[in-house]
Amino acid sequence: MSYPSSIQNLINEFSKLPGIGPRTAVRFVFYLLRKPQSELDAFGSAILDLKKEIGVCSRCFNITESGESKLCSICQNPQRDQKTICVVEEALNIPAFEKTRQFNGLYHILGGVIKPRKGVGPEQLKIRELVERIKNNGISEVIIATNPTTEGETTALYLVRTLKPLKIKTTRLARGLPTGGDLEYTDEVTLGSALAGRREYQ
Amino acid sequence: MSYPSSIQNLINEFSKLPGIGPRTAVRFVFYLLRKPQSELDAFGSAILDLKKEIGVCSRCFNITESGESKLCSICQNPQRDQKTICVVEEALNIPAFEKTRQFNGLYHILGGVIKPRKGVGPEQLKIRELVERIKNNGISEVIIATNPTTEGETTALYLVRTLKPLKIKTTRLARGLPTGGDLEYTDEVTLGSALAGRREYQ
Repeated sequence: MSYPSSIQNLINEFSKLPGIGPRTAVRFVFYLLRKPQSELDAFGSAILDLKKEIGVCSRCFNITESGESKLCSICQNPQRDQKTICVVEEALNIPAFEKTRQFNGLYHILGGVIKPRKGVGPEQLKIRELVERIKNNGISEVIIATNPTTEGETTALYLVRTLKPLKIKTTRLARGLPTGGDLEYTDEVTLGSALAGRREYQ
Repeated sequence: MSYPSSIQNLINEFSKLPGIGPRTAVRFVFYLLRKPQSELDAFGSAILDLKKEIGVCSRCFNITESGESKLCSICQNPQRDQKTICVVEEALNIPAFEKTRQFNGLYHILGGVIKPRKGVGPEQLKIRELVERIKNNGISEVIIATNPTTEGETTALYLVRTLKPLKIKTTRLARGLPTGGDLEYTDEVTLGSALAGRREYQ
């Protein structure tokens, strides 16, 4: 049994999304088949136009509404601490920090992590631009906030080494137990970090 | 922190898909942001054109490639047993039966289940058409294969009552333990059905 080509075509497209297998893709397509054409038009156009109005901040490489300015809304905000930069892998990571309301500095988006196997070296990331930015803007602290994965760690180590000659404060996020976690199910590396980083009650 | 409108717009569209929350929707959008426009064009067009080439089989209401014929490929196939109809809720259910390779009859797609709360009564489903089909085509068996949910059961019971005057064999799928299941985690209704329907070793 094969599906009509327009259905199979959309199943294939949905299957490319991260974490979506063919079964879920089929479910999405049959869900859409029951919707009026106007909803399909809105959805399809949203995908076609996704990048039409989007630019990249010339300073931190965050995504930004194009046509407005070359700087993103965070870089434009004079209320923010201009001396602290939080370095993240993707623009996608910024909302998580913003939601904490505990960071008021600027960001720098690397655009990925070092993945030698996939041909992504340091020169494919915005590392040179980060160094320039630190040199030219009197930055006092760089928080390296790559993901706690092997590739994120590798990239963080590379950054630490690269930034060393600049002699600025370079920090990383604390490791330990996630809030709401369960000791019983915590892996040994996380628990080891939590022990190593333990703090005295005040 | 708010996203540019074109991003927020697509996040909203993805969030409408079944089982997709805002976090997953954000992940999809950022995944697409890294893709070239040509891939977005292919994806967007696949959604816009989904229903353009699609028709509905005039006999069983399965989806079919329009322009080809008024009957779907299953109804057109002379190799299939024309006397047996398997009644399903959605066209989406057909591939599951086809994969078993144990059913060689025809299908009838109801187009949903009876949901009084959402205003879906028997007259919104293709039940009248099913009765006509049985009367006019010398059908010998109707397998009622609605989902094993409350609504599916309600619809099945309604069908049984409606088909009774036609005096044809009406069957339902066996209930019991799913292959690969675990007795420990089997709910009491399923286990009760498995007990009630137990079979003697031959």
